[in-house]
Amino acid sequence: MINLAVVGCGRIGVMHAANIMRHDETSLAGVFDINVAGARQFAESTNAYVFDSFSEIVNSSEIDGIVVASATETHADYIEQAVDAGVAVLCEKPIDLDLDRVDRCSKAISDSVIPVQIGFNRRFDPGHSAAHSTAHSGEIGEIIQVIITSRDPSMPPRQYLEQAGGLLRDMTIHDFDLARFMLGEEPAEIFATVERTMQKKLLEELDDHDTAMIILRTQSGKQCIINNSRQAVYGYDQRIEILGTKGMVISDNRRPTEVKRFGQESTNCAAPLLHFFVERYEEAFMAEISHFADCIKSSRTPCVGFEDGRAALILAEAAYLSVRERRVVKIDEVY
Amino acid sequence: MINLAVVGCGRIGVMHAANIMRHDETSLAGVFDINVAGARQFAESTNAYVFDSFSEIVNSSEIDGIVVASATETHADYIEQAVDAGVAVLCEKPIDLDLDRVDRCSKAISDSVIPVQIGFNRRFDPGHSAAHSTAHSGEIGEIIQVIITSRDPSMPPRQYLEQAGGLLRDMTIHDFDLARFMLGEEPAEIFATVERTMQKKLLEELDDHDTAMIILRTQSGKQCIINNSRQAVYGYDQRIEILGTKGMVISDNRRPTEVKRFGQESTNCAAPLLHFFVERYEEAFMAEISHFADCIKSSRTPCVGFEDGRAALILAEAAYLSVRERRVVKIDEVY
Amino acid sequence: MINLAVVGCGRIGVMHAANIMRHDETSLAGVFDINVAGARQFAESTNAYVFDSFSEIVNSSEIDGIVVASATETHADYIEQAVDAGVAVLCEKPIDLDLDRVDRCSKAISDSVIPVQIGFNRRFDPGHSAAHSTAHSGEIGEIIQVIITSRDPSMPPRQYLEQAGGLLRDMTIHDFDLARFMLGEEPAEIFATVERTMQKKLLEELDDHDTAMIILRTQSGKQCIINNSRQAVYGYDQRIEILGTKGMVISDNRRPTEVKRFGQESTNCAAPLLHFFVERYEEAFMAEISHFADCIKSSRTPCVGFEDGRAALILAEAAYLSVRERRVVKIDEVY
Amino acid sequence: MINLAVVGCGRIGVMHAANIMRHDETSLAGVFDINVAGARQFAESTNAYVFDSFSEIVNSSEIDGIVVASATETHADYIEQAVDAGVAVLCEKPIDLDLDRVDRCSKAISDSVIPVQIGFNRRFDPGHSAAHSTAHSGEIGEIIQVIITSRDPSMPPRQYLEQAGGLLRDMTIHDFDLARFMLGEEPAEIFATVERTMQKKLLEELDDHDTAMIILRTQSGKQCIINNSRQAVYGYDQRIEILGTKGMVISDNRRPTEVKRFGQESTNCAAPLLHFFVERYEEAFMAEISHFADCIKSSRTPCVGFEDGRAALILAEAAYLSVRERRVVKIDEVY
Repeated sequence: MINLAVVGCGRIGVMHAANIMRHDETSLAGVFDINVAGARQFAESTNAYVFDSFSEIVNSSEIDGIVVASATETHADYIEQAVDAGVAVLCEKPIDLDLDRVDRCSKAISDSVIPVQIGFNRRFDPGHSAAHSTAHSGEIGEIIQVIITSRDPSMPPRQYLEQAGGLLRDMTIHDFDLARFMLGEEPAEIFATVERTMQKKLLEELDDHDTAMIILRTQSGKQCIINNSRQAVYGYDQRIEILGTKGMVISDNRRPTEVKRFGQESTNCAAPLLHFFVERYEEAFMAEISHFADCIKSSRTPCVGFEDGRAALILAEAAYLSVRERRVVKIDEVY
Repeated sequence: MINLAVVGCGRIGVMHAANIMRHDETSLAGVFDINVAGARQFAESTNAYVFDSFSEIVNSSEIDGIVVASATETHADYIEQAVDAGVAVLCEKPIDLDLDRVDRCSKAISDSVIPVQIGFNRRFDPGHSAAHSTAHSGEIGEIIQVIITSRDPSMPPRQYLEQAGGLLRDMTIHDFDLARFMLGEEPAEIFATVERTMQKKLLEELDDHDTAMIILRTQSGKQCIINNSRQAVYGYDQRIEILGTKGMVISDNRRPTEVKRFGQESTNCAAPLLHFFVERYEEAFMAEISHFADCIKSSRTPCVGFEDGRAALILAEAAYLSVRERRVVKIDEVY
Repeated sequence: MINLAVVGCGRIGVMHAANIMRHDETSLAGVFDINVAGARQFAESTNAYVFDSFSEIVNSSEIDGIVVASATETHADYIEQAVDAGVAVLCEKPIDLDLDRVDRCSKAISDSVIPVQIGFNRRFDPGHSAAHSTAHSGEIGEIIQVIITSRDPSMPPRQYLEQAGGLLRDMTIHDFDLARFMLGEEPAEIFATVERTMQKKLLEELDDHDTAMIILRTQSGKQCIINNSRQAVYGYDQRIEILGTKGMVISDNRRPTEVKRFGQESTNCAAPLLHFFVERYEEAFMAEISHFADCIKSSRTPCVGFEDGRAALILAEAAYLSVRERRVVKIDEVY
Repeated sequence: MINLAVVGCGRIGVMHAANIMRHDETSLAGVFDINVAGARQFAESTNAYVFDSFSEIVNSSEIDGIVVASATETHADYIEQAVDAGVAVLCEKPIDLDLDRVDRCSKAISDSVIPVQIGFNRRFDPGHSAAHSTAHSGEIGEIIQVIITSRDPSMPPRQYLEQAGGLLRDMTIHDFDLARFMLGEEPAEIFATVERTMQKKLLEELDDHDTAMIILRTQSGKQCIINNSRQAVYGYDQRIEILGTKGMVISDNRRPTEVKRFGQESTNCAAPLLHFFVERYEEAFMAEISHFADCIKSSRTPCVGFEDGRAALILAEAAYLSVRERRVVKIDEVY
């Protein structure tokens, strides 16, 4: 059994902790949150051990890995401390909102072979993963275009938005990672537009946005569109389409059931989409933990590591530059 | 151009006449209806010629074929007269409600090679036809089961029911023909149940029914289910499913558009099904006329002829015997 | 936590044991199998306790309930012993292949209020359950017809068939239960046909069959078709369709992903269906355990109990009588 | 009957002529092509009259309208002559490849009330039209985003490309019109990228492209993506998606049948998409003729007129400017 600690007992941390307990090959060594009350609340219902400090975790000889789901500004520090102590880390995205901090962290851990995995869970979704395999198997020829539709069911609360770093760093970052994954090549250029279409006052105040349309282009001429919205009332809309010279593959939305209703006004009405990431990517989050455990067990490098986290952030920076200057930005302008 | 006359100016006759006018290779020589007013009404809006009698049609040297869409009790007479005069006939189903009359007609025309086609239009539907081709190409192996779902959008008026001959002779007869077509073998046995589920009083009075479930079995053990209802409020439901040892093929419903609506309560809501046979089998009816014209032009035997009409009626008779005696009936018990 | 023991360490028993371990509200007290090797093998990989005998289980003060997944001929004995000892039972179907034995068991436990649940897992499937709710909410009006398609991916091995009791008692029994559940009324009559379409020699030797088509009818005139095949090469085909006077609801098949492939020859090609019951009804099996635990916790009667198991067996008996006599059988002819 | 002449006997002209003959309310007065052989060939198989010159048409007192499907460089002249002679025109897109010429034509006809319709047939597609109605009915709230996928089945021949005016003027122009139609507002800004992904040498030589991704933005902040490819081997891919604050509506692809095939490797495999515009937009082309006839009959202004043709061309010009300067272009920079 791989012994994992979870840091941060918010929505995502608690989900990871539950998955670790449910997983056949991992066990939950304990949880930690600087907000001690949050940790205790989770511990009460699960009998999980509560660590006093992050140091206690990294110094414990029984911990094989740490899942970091705390506030973004703590991520880089925790990664550095864990790697320094020789403990594997699975860290939620983004690594940090400040690219300089990410670069310093990159240098700090560059000599280590300790597994560092970044929480781009969507790569592990069975559908997206199968679409990727099909697209890269040659079945659809050369990849020409990737179309990513990614819409949240509803606007997050103000409090969340205040610390999230903006739409492109918080939400689109997953799509930047998927774009790189699906294209199989690094984007060389980016053009981005963002918009405020709902709750305009709040978004103006926060200098944030609720929709985005982004075009990426690789050196060899492959194109990718990312289409984001903070509000799709019909559910969490997560689609990937890959057009190749010999065909197309789509990873479409999932629903809780395949019930279809027929009436006088409309037919084939399906259930609403799975509501949000916890439901939609349930299998992906579990597979992410599996991969992390496998990497620890066999001292392998995670398939989605620190440099993937950094690359997605660079795309977000380049996207914001494109938004400000209303032009195509070369990715190497920003790093 | 193949010159065709239409006999009977009801809903179906008028539709055939319009198709004949629209078809590139046929022209409408004129129409006839014993109800002269009906014929004149149609003629007014189309400038079609109105024949005075059926004799005028069969004696005209310019008529290549006759489409018979008059009342059922006239079908056999018209077929005999047309064949006698050497004029091809496309006759709507059923040939007659009385199997003896059908048998006499069969004998009367048995020596002739004049094309006689029966109006089982569904065989010509592009979807059903493609499903048949796939199923008989070997792609799905040996055929094991055929499932036919066939539901009208709503109950016909009392007046229609009074002369229609009962659910199994009027409505199911199309499905009996499709069953024979899809199975590729003659049914050897039948079991049928019928039910009154709506407008029970009316149906009791008429000794008629509004739903049926029927199981057919061929000598070699292939099975077929037919599932009928007079009322499917979501539209004209026409599905065929063929299960084979190596796969399955389904010919599914058609809609006027592929519009899909997504909201908070349901997603992927499609347009209602095409309402009824005129809309759903528009292409089939046109292809039926094409086939009739082709058979006339090249003196070929229609792919769906008199004996197919008779065989479907025999299945209806056998089905009613099964209903009465609540047991499996061998088809050769009734003919 | 509800403490459950599992009896029988075959495919289904092992699945239940794993579910009990994974479930938040149940714990696995241990396993038992008269084939001690089988139990030990499972115990080795899971650290589960291995009971020496069924008596040890029922006499343990720490056991809240027993999941019986042993050979069919042991079911009735185990149910009686468990109920006698005051321990709740969740027993796999069928209760017994002999209706007399079932009746004796029924009498033996009739005075007890100990929860006895029968393993008709499909009622707990989120899709089938939602279809049931929709159909019985009034949204589709009065129920007219239920169509159940239920096909296994491939023929079971000879050894399995030899002790399974025949297609209708082994496989269709689930569909008999679903028919009763979906109709919301007891079937009053049945007509059944069975066939040998593949591996005919083996099936003749065993007096068994690989396909069935069955029509059920309730007293009030609701109809149901069950369509079975032992071999659907495209996967485990599990569909339910409910037609009402005001609409229709379908619970359709599930796939592991929503990937769709487009090429020159075909478009929208989906992944194969979920292979078999373990995959397809994964959520249903877990919900079944939840319901069992709930019933134990709150001393409630399971929603699918002993009499449901008996009723499904009676339908199987009536179906076989219909097959032999090739006629409609009234259900009360057989009990 | 509305008497229509067709000018230009290429693929599209011949299709229009056939539709005019088939339409209940229009008749084909004759055809004209400067390539006399082409006109004669068509006339031979249809008995259509062949005009000697465009003048003969506009001077005939029996012509109610002209359908112009000749080479692009003739469009503006023909429109001017027809309007001058008081004859209605339905002209294929684009009006001209040179915006100055379009502007001169605009001035020349600006005082006239003679119906001038531009051949943006897709607005008349039943699916796209229903999606538009739904989106503008309020059912999906305020429109936020429009996503247009528009891909041809295969690259046109070199000869076609040489005179087509480039991807954005030839192919995307239909999507520019759809974008305006669906958004219900004028785009204020555009960003466009184009690419050569196949047949790169040919495309370089012609300074043309085979894929495009374009983002449009209206003054009020509505966004639109257009996604083009000259080659989708799975068929003519024509999808429109409209996201609103309260829902989404999609007009999806059409297929010739709803046949679905199931096998061991894949399930639900549908027929290929309708091959190209003649098949896919068959109903749209007919409805376009209907609208033209209606406008003539009742002296109404066509719903898609000269200024729509000009507006789409302006978007194409702006798109090419964006491509050259790799930046957002305000539409009013180019006109």
